[in-house]
Amino acid sequence: MTRVDEFERVEYGVAGSKRSLKMALAQIDTCVGDLDGNAAKVLEYARRAARDEARLVVFPEMTLTGYPIEDLALRATFRRAAWDKANELAGQLSEQGLGDLYIVVGTVGTDHEKDLPRNRMVVLHDGVVWAGYDKHFLPNYGVFDEFRIFSPGQRSVVLTIDGQRIGVAICEDIWQDGGPIQALAGRNLDLLLTINGSPYEEGKGHVRRELAERRAREVAAPVAYVNQVGGQDDLIFDGGSFVIDQDGRLLEHSPQFREDLCYWTLPAAGESAQVGSQLTPDMDGDEEVYRACVLGLRDYMAKNHFTGVCLGLSGGIDSALVATIAADACGGSNIWGISMPSRYSSDGSKDDAADLAERLGAHYEVQAIETLFSAFQDQLNLTGVAAENLQARIRGVIVMAYSNAKGLLALATGNKSELACGYSTIYGDAVGGYAPIKDLLKTRVWQLSRWRNAQAKAAGEPEPIPVASITKAPSAELREGQKDSDSLPDYGLLDKVLEAYIEKAHGRADLLADGFDPKTVDTVMRLVDRAEWKRRQYPLGPKLTALAFGRDRRLPVTNAFAE
Amino acid sequence: MTRVDEFERVEYGVAGSKRSLKMALAQIDTCVGDLDGNAAKVLEYARRAARDEARLVVFPEMTLTGYPIEDLALRATFRRAAWDKANELAGQLSEQGLGDLYIVVGTVGTDHEKDLPRNRMVVLHDGVVWAGYDKHFLPNYGVFDEFRIFSPGQRSVVLTIDGQRIGVAICEDIWQDGGPIQALAGRNLDLLLTINGSPYEEGKGHVRRELAERRAREVAAPVAYVNQVGGQDDLIFDGGSFVIDQDGRLLEHSPQFREDLCYWTLPAAGESAQVGSQLTPDMDGDEEVYRACVLGLRDYMAKNHFTGVCLGLSGGIDSALVATIAADACGGSNIWGISMPSRYSSDGSKDDAADLAERLGAHYEVQAIETLFSAFQDQLNLTGVAAENLQARIRGVIVMAYSNAKGLLALATGNKSELACGYSTIYGDAVGGYAPIKDLLKTRVWQLSRWRNAQAKAAGEPEPIPVASITKAPSAELREGQKDSDSLPDYGLLDKVLEAYIEKAHGRADLLADGFDPKTVDTVMRLVDRAEWKRRQYPLGPKLTALAFGRDRRLPVTNAFAE
Repeated sequence: MTRVDEFERVEYGVAGSKRSLKMALAQIDTCVGDLDGNAAKVLEYARRAARDEARLVVFPEMTLTGYPIEDLALRATFRRAAWDKANELAGQLSEQGLGDLYIVVGTVGTDHEKDLPRNRMVVLHDGVVWAGYDKHFLPNYGVFDEFRIFSPGQRSVVLTIDGQRIGVAICEDIWQDGGPIQALAGRNLDLLLTINGSPYEEGKGHVRRELAERRAREVAAPVAYVNQVGGQDDLIFDGGSFVIDQDGRLLEHSPQFREDLCYWTLPAAGESAQVGSQLTPDMDGDEEVYRACVLGLRDYMAKNHFTGVCLGLSGGIDSALVATIAADACGGSNIWGISMPSRYSSDGSKDDAADLAERLGAHYEVQAIETLFSAFQDQLNLTGVAAENLQARIRGVIVMAYSNAKGLLALATGNKSELACGYSTIYGDAVGGYAPIKDLLKTRVWQLSRWRNAQAKAAGEPEPIPVASITKAPSAELREGQKDSDSLPDYGLLDKVLEAYIEKAHGRADLLADGFDPKTVDTVMRLVDRAEWKRRQYPLGPKLTALAFGRDRRLPVTNAFAE
Repeated sequence: MTRVDEFERVEYGVAGSKRSLKMALAQIDTCVGDLDGNAAKVLEYARRAARDEARLVVFPEMTLTGYPIEDLALRATFRRAAWDKANELAGQLSEQGLGDLYIVVGTVGTDHEKDLPRNRMVVLHDGVVWAGYDKHFLPNYGVFDEFRIFSPGQRSVVLTIDGQRIGVAICEDIWQDGGPIQALAGRNLDLLLTINGSPYEEGKGHVRRELAERRAREVAAPVAYVNQVGGQDDLIFDGGSFVIDQDGRLLEHSPQFREDLCYWTLPAAGESAQVGSQLTPDMDGDEEVYRACVLGLRDYMAKNHFTGVCLGLSGGIDSALVATIAADACGGSNIWGISMPSRYSSDGSKDDAADLAERLGAHYEVQAIETLFSAFQDQLNLTGVAAENLQARIRGVIVMAYSNAKGLLALATGNKSELACGYSTIYGDAVGGYAPIKDLLKTRVWQLSRWRNAQAKAAGEPEPIPVASITKAPSAELREGQKDSDSLPDYGLLDKVLEAYIEKAHGRADLLADGFDPKTVDTVMRLVDRAEWKRRQYPLGPKLTALAFGRDRRLPVTNAFAE
């Protein structure tokens, strides 16, 4: 732990009588690398906040650069461009009559001594970069690689604005004990302000608020927490910004999964704090996860300049849920659903696929693969798994042909249970630029499908997903009479074992102690280890989202799990 | 920088008169996760060293676990298994009459206070784990992610064996100033011993030896440097272990790219050091890179249990060099070369592919794609790039059919120039489990091809690569009369710009200052940025080697390079 005496105490601004200070929490969706677009959005939100008479406008972590920028931070030319952009923005704010405001934005800085980047907060005011703070704790676990990239800051910073003393922190700074927060304790704060790029995990809102309450007590002042919102590559940020005080009283709470601008006012001397303009209630778990999936896909499309998607519609639940998420992300008319039946496809499957497309208002095209399959087989004479994979790969070629010909984003429809067990074909059903449900276990796929239908019903709208797709036994339909249950344990059991083996990193002895029977444990371990081994040979195609797995880290080759 | 006074000074062994000590440098090839296999190899090499009357046997970094083990280190069950294995091995050594030896191996340990793994060296002696040291400096740049995973050690360790005082270090410990090396200075050492997993880069041998010489002066004793050898996933370790003294005198030098056991003797009191049994001269650059490619592929096959490969043979230089590397890695008779001509394939191309296969003694099969292409086009009616990609994807399906049906590793044949510029088809020519030349610029592909032919000629063997494949103008042959030069600058120029833009991270202004003309700079930047953008949509399939690029790190989406 860094010793508190290693922090240089820095003050910006001048002391004075404490006046009422209206603060705007600008929960925006930025794009990595897009300095111009991000700065334009800051300007727009600053203007709106000024119209509402805010004095202090706070944006998320690394606002100007987008977050996470990974190794892009190591390009000196990019850091120079970000610095120029911050100064240009300060000038523009001033020219537009917004120089009186204090605009807090995140950006990348440089530690000139080590020639390394820093994760920096700057305050723009009166036409210049008026104040700065560098993140101290650099997370280096799970989806984070910050210690790899940034040099840590060693200053404890207090801004005085209108007599209000505001201590600052960036994201991980409040997640670790000691460090800058400890250095801020006893500095007579009126507010602790933290800007964040905190990725979504189910139920994380509670964790963040409890943590902030604890820090509020530590510095003896309320905490204002501004979070990024939006999908960025394989991460999803949920927003849910808030202000909370030392007693755990929620003073302001932004919604999740959309941009927001809300306000809270620091009271003048002798006055007491009021609850802000909105206190958004929490969503339930299924709604939260579903909306995360929709936002992740919508932003992936927007940031990569796609307006439409294509995917194979098998009539099964996975492609049905993916198509429904896509319809909520970009509208049914921007979806090309392709039915690619073979001799093994049941009439029910074909009907369910057509039914789904109609419910969603999606384009629906049938591309039977029988002729193509025969043409390959005339040359190759494949049998067994090779012949099964051939069918899946012909479908992959067709999906990519639609993607190329129409400029559509191809969606992979695999769920986490089947991907973990290797129950999919590389370059086959796994093709695609984005895999919207790759972090959902199969049982969760069913649950979210039911939730989405129920939500439609409650709103008096038609249910998007055909009931038959939810209720029928899952099958890959790559050979006569094939069922998932031929190869995999029952999904209810499988998903529980996967959770223990993958998320909790339980070994064989742990799994037996968890109460799973030895046969199931050995089956699942063998499937997962083999899939991991295969994935190392042919890394999965699609861009993966990070609801639960986090970003895919390298896993071992040999005997690794066989302890 | 860590302060020297923060290191705990630890001594193992008892002081005594300094006797002659024969040390074995056991440069072995380990496998990540394979505790049993790695321990068995340690036992085998220890036996050999004992027969040659060595007293101290030194193995590379993380010998028992393999290296790099990445997040596998975070599995508590794996760490327990590694600890049990070290103890079991100490017992086996003793039972086999080798208990008198001192066996230095790397493994994973646990920092119990933080419940985090440590990168550990242990000394096995007399049936037990006799001594230990934990790596202090944890590299967190380029291909390394160690700070993410391990907790740093804080002890400065000296082993006394036969009166000889031996200070120890692990890899990065000697690459950084200060820290454990500084803490060893003045501790009256007779030897500084470092165990390493140092990945190959062209010409790195010189850098390592100069560094070791500097450290030898710092601790006033010779340095023994034992390096891992072999391919592990996307990294290649070249070995080249050595002993060097304070005057830069090379006392022992193992060959690169193969396992080796060699010896050097620490002199008794009053005697002087002798040069060891072998002083392998350095290879020239082309030979070094070529052998790295062969070893990388050979080990990838062995560690993933493949005995044969398949690939498309176009008649071009890329597939010719890949097939030649494969022949050197696994023998020509284990190669399935597939010619997949279309209407655009020239007779010359087909002849050159057949000629190559014959020279290598590879299986050669022709799978014309015309009928398959027509079958798809009857349904899809694609034009332009979509139609070009369709041809490449049909070939991808065929290559994967061979892989599945015969259990072969599919090889992708792309070079670094075309991959950097996006001049390839995802799920098409990019399919494969391993891409042997993905780190070679096109000009280097030609250079290595000429080198390999010249080497064969010098050895009185037939040249493996048809001259026409080297001399003809490169073409993807996906439309009539297509040439690479229609889309890309001349490779001689392109490769120079790529090197500056990618390796040196030069921005536009830097590139102009480098003397490149604005038109070429803008073309190359646009190609690379667009390819990077496409790669983010559809991440490349093949497992990538890491000669020069290093492991692929995430790069930016939008406008990122356009400064």
